Amino acid sequence: MCENALRFTAKRAASMEGEALSALCTPALVVDIDKVKRNAERMIKRCQNLGVQLRPHMKTHKTLECADIMTGGSRRCIVVSTMAEACFYADHGFDDILYAYSLPFDKVERCAALSERLDLFQVLLDHPHALEQLKKRPLRDGRLWHVWLKLDCGNGRAGVLHSEPEALRLAQAIAETEGVELTGVYAHCGNTYNCRGVEKIQAVAQETTDLTLQFMEKLKAVGITCKSSIGSTPSCSHPVKDMAQLSEVHPGNYGFYDVQQSVIGSCSLEDVAVRVLTRVIGHCPHRNQLLIDCGWSGLSLDGAGKLPTGYAVIEGHPNLKLLSMTQEHGRVEPISGLLDYSKYPLGSLLTLIPYHSCATAVMHPVYHVHSEGRLLGKWTPTRGW
Amino acid sequence: MCENALRFTAKRAASMEGEALSALCTPALVVDIDKVKRNAERMIKRCQNLGVQLRPHMKTHKTLECADIMTGGSRRCIVVSTMAEACFYADHGFDDILYAYSLPFDKVERCAALSERLDLFQVLLDHPHALEQLKKRPLRDGRLWHVWLKLDCGNGRAGVLHSEPEALRLAQAIAETEGVELTGVYAHCGNTYNCRGVEKIQAVAQETTDLTLQFMEKLKAVGITCKSSIGSTPSCSHPVKDMAQLSEVHPGNYGFYDVQQSVIGSCSLEDVAVRVLTRVIGHCPHRNQLLIDCGWSGLSLDGAGKLPTGYAVIEGHPNLKLLSMTQEHGRVEPISGLLDYSKYPLGSLLTLIPYHSCATAVMHPVYHVHSEGRLLGKWTPTRGW
Repeated sequence: MCENALRFTAKRAASMEGEALSALCTPALVVDIDKVKRNAERMIKRCQNLGVQLRPHMKTHKTLECADIMTGGSRRCIVVSTMAEACFYADHGFDDILYAYSLPFDKVERCAALSERLDLFQVLLDHPHALEQLKKRPLRDGRLWHVWLKLDCGNGRAGVLHSEPEALRLAQAIAETEGVELTGVYAHCGNTYNCRGVEKIQAVAQETTDLTLQFMEKLKAVGITCKSSIGSTPSCSHPVKDMAQLSEVHPGNYGFYDVQQSVIGSCSLEDVAVRVLTRVIGHCPHRNQLLIDCGWSGLSLDGAGKLPTGYAVIEGHPNLKLLSMTQEHGRVEPISGLLDYSKYPLGSLLTLIPYHSCATAVMHPVYHVHSEGRLLGKWTPTRGW
Repeated sequence: MCENALRFTAKRAASMEGEALSALCTPALVVDIDKVKRNAERMIKRCQNLGVQLRPHMKTHKTLECADIMTGGSRRCIVVSTMAEACFYADHGFDDILYAYSLPFDKVERCAALSERLDLFQVLLDHPHALEQLKKRPLRDGRLWHVWLKLDCGNGRAGVLHSEPEALRLAQAIAETEGVELTGVYAHCGNTYNCRGVEKIQAVAQETTDLTLQFMEKLKAVGITCKSSIGSTPSCSHPVKDMAQLSEVHPGNYGFYDVQQSVIGSCSLEDVAVRVLTRVIGHCPHRNQLLIDCGWSGLSLDGAGKLPTGYAVIEGHPNLKLLSMTQEHGRVEPISGLLDYSKYPLGSLLTLIPYHSCATAVMHPVYHVHSEGRLLGKWTPTRGW
C-alpha cells in the first residue's frame, strides 16, 4: 500500500483523534455524534411516549455505530433497504431485521439463508407472484417466512393499493400459506416529502395511519391479526396521536437529518448532524466565482433546483450559492454582489450542509465522526446490494 | 461474514465465471470487455496516427484492469483526478502519473511523498499561491516538482485564463523556481460537452488547440519550452490535425463511453461498454408504470431532463422511459400508450445504458466484466480522495 496513503489513513484512524476538523483532507463527510445521539434519543422518547415500537431504517447511514445509537444499543428491530445491509448487520450481531423491499426474485435464496440463520429475519411483498416464490423455497427446520404486506396508502411507489380488493386477497393468501406467516402490514408515507410545515406533514401522517388502520379492520373482519407499521422521517418527527394504534414506525433519515428535512419541517437546520467539508481550490474573478474541491462525487446531484443556495447550504455564508458541480469541482457564486476573494483564500475551508443526507452519505467510503469539532474516529458504511 | 453473502460473493468471484449475465443479482454494473478493448485500441491507434502521446484519464473507471487496457499494458503515462487514485495506481506498479487537479493545499505533503517515491509524479497548478506551497516543501534527494500549468481555454472551470497576462507570468515563475520544473501546459476542453456533432466538437478542439499552441509560442518567445496537452473524450474521439502539434492528449471517458457521448457525437450507442442490469420488481397498472430495482444509488441522478427516455436508455425498449428514481427504486413508464405487463414479468431483466458512465460507475463497489454476455470476473475500483 502507498506509504503515503498508509501514513494518512493511519493518521486519520488513530492519531487524528482529538484533532480539529480542519486536519482532514477534503472533501470529507463529517458527523456530529452529539447531534446524532440527540436526534436518536428524541425519536426513541417520542415513540415511547406514543407507545409504539420504533424500528429505525438503516439506509441513510448504513453503519454499525449509528445503528447502535438508533436502536438504543439493543441491536434489534431494524429495517434495511438492501441485502448487503441485511448481511452486514447480521454479521455483526444485529437481529430482528426487516428487509423492507418488495421481494426481489433474484434474492430469494439469500433471504432464505438469513431467515434460517437469524432469530427473526423478515421480508416484504406486494404481489401474489412473490408469494409463489416463497412457497417454492420452504424454510428448513420448520421455520416460517415472516412476511410483511406492503400497502400503498398514497405514496405512489411500491405496494398494493390499499383500496384494491387484491390487497385483502393477498393478505389472506399470505396468512393461509403453509410455512409463511403474515407478520404485518407496512406502509411508507414518502409522500410527506412533498409537504411543507407540520400541519401538512401531519395531514399525510393521519391519512396514512387511517388507511392502514382501516385495512387492519378489514383483516380483523376476516379473522386475521398482525402488526402494522408506517413511517417516514417527517411523519415520525411530528406523529399524530392515532399513530399510537400502530404496532411500529420505521423512520430512518432522522439520525442525520438534512436540508430537505428542514425545508419540509421535520427538523431545524440546527438538528442536521452531517456536513461535507470542502476547500477553496480556485478563484475565478472573471466569472465572479470560486471553485471548491467538492463535486457530485462528494455531495451527489440530489436537490438540483430546489434551494436558492443551489445544491447545498454553505454554512455561515448565506450569500453563497453552490451553482453547479462536475465530478470533483463545485462552482460557487454569490447570490448577489461581487465576491470578496480575501474572505475565501485558496485552501480555506467551507462547510456544506447536504440537501439529502441519504444521497450524500452514499458517496463517501468513510464518515469522520466528531464531538464539538474534535475528531473521535471513523464510521465505515456498507455498500452495494 | 454472512455465510450467505460469502457464498454469493464467492460465487460471483469464481464460480460465476462463464455464467450468463442473468445470473447476477441486480442492480449490477456490467462491463463489456471487448468494447473496452476496442475503444482503447482505437484511441491508441488514433493518437499513434496523429503522432501525439496518449495519457488516458482514470477517473471514469478507477480500476487497475481498465488502466492496463487503456495504457496498452505499459502501466505508464496516466492522469488521475484524486490522490486516492494516485496512491492506488502507484501501489500497483503504475508510474508517470499526472495528478491533474489544481494543487489542493491540504494534499501537498501527500503529493511530495509520491513525488519522492515514483519515477515521475506530476502535479498541476493555476495560481501563484500554489507555487508558494511547493516552495515551502522542497523535495528530498534533489528531486524536482514536476508541474503542469493549468490553462483555461474557454472551458470555464479551473485554470488561469489563456488571455490573461498572469498566465505567462505564472509559467515564468514556475520555470524560474528552484526545485520546480515547468513540465507542461494543460487545458481541458470540457466545453466540448456542450457540442452536438463532429463539426462542433472539432471547432472547440481546434480553438483549444490554437489557444494552447499560441500560449506555447508566447512561452517560446521568453525562452521556455515544455510539453502541451489538451483533452476530453469528444475532442480526442474526433481530433483535428493541428492536435498533432501538441505533446499529449488526455481523454478518459472513452474506455466506457455512455449515452451522453453518443448524443454529443463522440461515439455510437454501440460503442458504449457499460450497462446497469436491473429487474422489474413492481407492476403499477393504476399509474401505467413499472418499478425496477435500480434507483439513484445504482445509476446516479446525472442526466436529469436530458433524454426523452429519462435518466437512461433502456436497451431494446425505445418506448420505455426511466421517469424518476428514489434510492433503490426506479419508476418506468411508456413514452406513449399503455404498458403491456405481460412483456415485463416480475423478476425479468432490463438493461440500462447510463447517461454518464463516470457518475454511474462511482455508485458501484464492483463492476462485473463479461465477453459476449459470459461473465469473466470482477473489477474493483478505488474510491474516496
